[in-house]
Amino acid sequence: MRILIINPNSSYEMTQAIQKVAKDYAKDSVEVACKGTPGAPVFIETYEDIAKAGQGMIQLLRKNEQDFDAFIVACHYDPHLGVLKKLSHKPVVGIGQASMIMASLLGHSFSLITTDEHSIPIHEELIRKYHLDGYLVSIRAPWPQLKETSEHEQYMKVAQVAVSKDRAEVLVLGCAGLAGLDKYLQQRLGVPVLDGIICALIFASGLARI
Amino acid sequence: MRILIINPNSSYEMTQAIQKVAKDYAKDSVEVACKGTPGAPVFIETYEDIAKAGQGMIQLLRKNEQDFDAFIVACHYDPHLGVLKKLSHKPVVGIGQASMIMASLLGHSFSLITTDEHSIPIHEELIRKYHLDGYLVSIRAPWPQLKETSEHEQYMKVAQVAVSKDRAEVLVLGCAGLAGLDKYLQQRLGVPVLDGIICALIFASGLARI
Amino acid sequence: MRILIINPNSSYEMTQAIQKVAKDYAKDSVEVACKGTPGAPVFIETYEDIAKAGQGMIQLLRKNEQDFDAFIVACHYDPHLGVLKKLSHKPVVGIGQASMIMASLLGHSFSLITTDEHSIPIHEELIRKYHLDGYLVSIRAPWPQLKETSEHEQYMKVAQVAVSKDRAEVLVLGCAGLAGLDKYLQQRLGVPVLDGIICALIFASGLARI
Amino acid sequence: MRILIINPNSSYEMTQAIQKVAKDYAKDSVEVACKGTPGAPVFIETYEDIAKAGQGMIQLLRKNEQDFDAFIVACHYDPHLGVLKKLSHKPVVGIGQASMIMASLLGHSFSLITTDEHSIPIHEELIRKYHLDGYLVSIRAPWPQLKETSEHEQYMKVAQVAVSKDRAEVLVLGCAGLAGLDKYLQQRLGVPVLDGIICALIFASGLARI
Amino acid sequence: MRILIINPNSSYEMTQAIQKVAKDYAKDSVEVACKGTPGAPVFIETYEDIAKAGQGMIQLLRKNEQDFDAFIVACHYDPHLGVLKKLSHKPVVGIGQASMIMASLLGHSFSLITTDEHSIPIHEELIRKYHLDGYLVSIRAPWPQLKETSEHEQYMKVAQVAVSKDRAEVLVLGCAGLAGLDKYLQQRLGVPVLDGIICALIFASGLARI
Amino acid sequence: MRILIINPNSSYEMTQAIQKVAKDYAKDSVEVACKGTPGAPVFIETYEDIAKAGQGMIQLLRKNEQDFDAFIVACHYDPHLGVLKKLSHKPVVGIGQASMIMASLLGHSFSLITTDEHSIPIHEELIRKYHLDGYLVSIRAPWPQLKETSEHEQYMKVAQVAVSKDRAEVLVLGCAGLAGLDKYLQQRLGVPVLDGIICALIFASGLARI
Repeated sequence: MRILIINPNSSYEMTQAIQKVAKDYAKDSVEVACKGTPGAPVFIETYEDIAKAGQGMIQLLRKNEQDFDAFIVACHYDPHLGVLKKLSHKPVVGIGQASMIMASLLGHSFSLITTDEHSIPIHEELIRKYHLDGYLVSIRAPWPQLKETSEHEQYMKVAQVAVSKDRAEVLVLGCAGLAGLDKYLQQRLGVPVLDGIICALIFASGLARI
Repeated sequence: MRILIINPNSSYEMTQAIQKVAKDYAKDSVEVACKGTPGAPVFIETYEDIAKAGQGMIQLLRKNEQDFDAFIVACHYDPHLGVLKKLSHKPVVGIGQASMIMASLLGHSFSLITTDEHSIPIHEELIRKYHLDGYLVSIRAPWPQLKETSEHEQYMKVAQVAVSKDRAEVLVLGCAGLAGLDKYLQQRLGVPVLDGIICALIFASGLARI
Repeated sequence: MRILIINPNSSYEMTQAIQKVAKDYAKDSVEVACKGTPGAPVFIETYEDIAKAGQGMIQLLRKNEQDFDAFIVACHYDPHLGVLKKLSHKPVVGIGQASMIMASLLGHSFSLITTDEHSIPIHEELIRKYHLDGYLVSIRAPWPQLKETSEHEQYMKVAQVAVSKDRAEVLVLGCAGLAGLDKYLQQRLGVPVLDGIICALIFASGLARI
Repeated sequence: MRILIINPNSSYEMTQAIQKVAKDYAKDSVEVACKGTPGAPVFIETYEDIAKAGQGMIQLLRKNEQDFDAFIVACHYDPHLGVLKKLSHKPVVGIGQASMIMASLLGHSFSLITTDEHSIPIHEELIRKYHLDGYLVSIRAPWPQLKETSEHEQYMKVAQVAVSKDRAEVLVLGCAGLAGLDKYLQQRLGVPVLDGIICALIFASGLARI
Repeated sequence: MRILIINPNSSYEMTQAIQKVAKDYAKDSVEVACKGTPGAPVFIETYEDIAKAGQGMIQLLRKNEQDFDAFIVACHYDPHLGVLKKLSHKPVVGIGQASMIMASLLGHSFSLITTDEHSIPIHEELIRKYHLDGYLVSIRAPWPQLKETSEHEQYMKVAQVAVSKDRAEVLVLGCAGLAGLDKYLQQRLGVPVLDGIICALIFASGLARI
Repeated sequence: MRILIINPNSSYEMTQAIQKVAKDYAKDSVEVACKGTPGAPVFIETYEDIAKAGQGMIQLLRKNEQDFDAFIVACHYDPHLGVLKKLSHKPVVGIGQASMIMASLLGHSFSLITTDEHSIPIHEELIRKYHLDGYLVSIRAPWPQLKETSEHEQYMKVAQVAVSKDRAEVLVLGCAGLAGLDKYLQQRLGVPVLDGIICALIFASGLARI
């Protein structure tokens, strides 16, 4: 089975990093590849970035439709997921929906850990669209005072608040760029911490088999 | 005051028709212009059409930002409305949101009259996004058997069902292409029938004055 | 076009103040008048006040129905709005609904700034009735410690908390008596601050033209 | 224990009929009286009727506050219930809320049987205000073709549709004027049929004892 | 009239305590008995405890079905309430639902005071099942620092926070083991404080009379 | 990897049938076993059946906890799923939640196809508990007139109505006993038809790998 991970931005480093996480999880069971989106911004942060990535993503899907059994959109905003689902005859899974749906299976409540407070309204809109607002207890990003500590420490602090104050039973990493943090946080906090790429691989490979 | 109506598709006829409706309503109070979107599809029907119209709409707004006091997006899906609102320092109003919000002011319930059953899920998603699902009683399009009668008769039948069976207190025309039907239906049915262009002009001109 | 603003209380000063705000906004475009309600309490604060204003408001509307093109109810509780809408053949707009609907057009979330904590449950009930609870992030009134500072400072403090802590993208002034604060707060906070009288004038004049 | 039932209209016959139902249920356990509202309309059907009954109801409560242990508002719209609750130091119970809350205890779903289709939007608004919309499956009134049959037959037909088609597990009689129908329908349909006066007596007498 | 209170656990002390509260309230009006559940855990705290109490509760009901006019399930989780309702031809009332429904009649919002933070997710699930989440403002248990003070002081502190910070208009005691606290808190806080046993008795005796 | 499927009833045939479906899907990738629940009813249809299966299911889990990597509860009501999740340190997945969550990933709406109308309220309660009611458009069972045709024809008719009238984009088979129908219906209707066992295997095997 072959799965293509579409990275909606054009960053080569990000594309490589996503592919590494995916390969580490999939091992020999599934063949995974990750491709960046030509013409897209280097980072998807705003609604404008999303709008600008659309045409490249559509072309990327069309070009690879025959050669893969399932597709993953590797940005937590699930940009253009609806379009790609309509265009493809194969399963198309977004890492945002996959990880948050998985969270709803694992607990009564989840907190979304994201990189920047400015992204919160976009995440909220998406969570509501997926009817998952009943599970969401908070969306949290590192606050300014934390910015001087290491990335791991920052997110550890944020995650602790989500668990102790917001009573989140599950944490979801809200950005493909946070890959790898899941194990670090899960070991220290004792609650499930979900990475979107891995959750999307579970859905995509499972659906491709049916 | 000058208001630019952005027609998200590239159809010249549609652009002209929208401009006529707008001028008829605005008369001398406001100067209105309507422009089509270069590079966009001729008709916006699917999520893919929306994705393809994005970059052209952004360019159109940027080019005209200085010369107008407010902007209207003239497609009932409100494509890329969030992006344009972020990019502009002036009011940007979508005809979908404007007409359905106006409906919520005028009655306890509204029915959306649209051109094709395939568009219903897209409308539903938008209505939920705007938290207007509590007002919506139905979305109705002409059913196949009606296709042989005149357009006015088709929509009259659909509208009658919305009023009598769904108990809609207000009707909203769910497509810029239905402009003109509002008066015809309102006179015959005795309930308010709202056209998006006119509703958006009320909001855009009102907001531009503040 | 002539619009009558019905002030549901019997305070002469309030009636004059509302009329001034309305005339300042409307200028020559619309002729506006404001009338107090005979027999109503001097201030509308409780459900009992609302009950006592009903008959006077009905009489006021009936007496002026012929002479005006639209009516505005100038109390943020929108008292007896449903009754007046049923009785009149012209548009009747409440400043509560008009301002909060306008807020839903301008942002993902709004905070209602009101004069007294005791009014919060009444506002909450109204906001839920209008299906606007999905947009509301907070209702805030000056807390006791603020009572010694100037009115402008009090509401500035309250508004700052609404923006920074509650993440309100829009502020709505929740009392006709706060007229004038909108410009003061908007300039200092950089988010839209809505006054009910002005919002209602936009709706009432727009609807009267259709 | 003494309970006063406030009939919000001024119909002597209705007042007598309500008192009879209440006495038949209460027997010796509670002393009940029913009084009509001076100055109120003869029948409460519209929002205007509600507005007109307010001042008389307030006076009736004030005059009798000392002499009774609890109060019941005997119109299914629960007119001015919030006002009376605030004004009284004793329990005040509305027959609308009491009967529909009781229905939520008895089943997963209820249907409201009312006298006229025009009252449906007012009932809907009230049910939503009480957060009971999750239990409501339908509001039904006799349809025009039934108007020629006897009252019992009419409501039997309506109730059958509510049970078989809407899957209502409980029926609520939505008008004080339908008193007596509860036993007739319950025996024939095998589902609980609730009368507001009796439900309100259960609450009012129970609360007055605490 | 005879009412059997089913204590879902097997604690003799708890059974006696519940019976005392019930008899104190019911006095001569109703004959009440309370029985513990053979084979059930000594305390119902987790989902596993609930599962283990099921068969004993069913047997207890079956054995006593003929001899009583109504049944009460005396644990705030309302364990197996749905099963018992289906099995019995008499009214079966849970203290969780009875007390929270009563709260919805008495105010716009309630807070649930419970014994332990670990029970919060179970209560939340139940409240949502009853569509009462619109009324709930908080679920609060004594925080660790309070554990050294007397039980009355602990719950007084918790209740004060619920009233002043969460704006709860009504408090509900969320455990049969808190019986007696209602009067203590109500006198000091000036808001209604509801005990489940008493609320269930109001419903059960009222329903048994119909 | 070893997955144990817990069949909550005690029917040997059902246990064998479930195991066959699971093995056909899993092939060599995962080792699956299915065990019936000692002491449970032969079929789980009512809340009482669920209550009676609880203790046996808990024992079955405890006895096999060490020997398997994940557990599946193979009844669409997900009986005692919350208890087993708490008791086990391994993933526990219910076929009800797994299949309906998968449906939410695949479309905007799903219809649940079940065996009997009496089960509808239990399914509705579960769907609401999972916050999936926003996706549900209908729950349908074969109506009495269909009972004479073959099982495949019955469900084909029901499924057609769900797709054409209820606009379901996905169908979910609401009973472990309907295994095998998924492929039959999916080929004929052209929409995804989900079997709970297979969906649960995707989740359980995916989660066991993390």
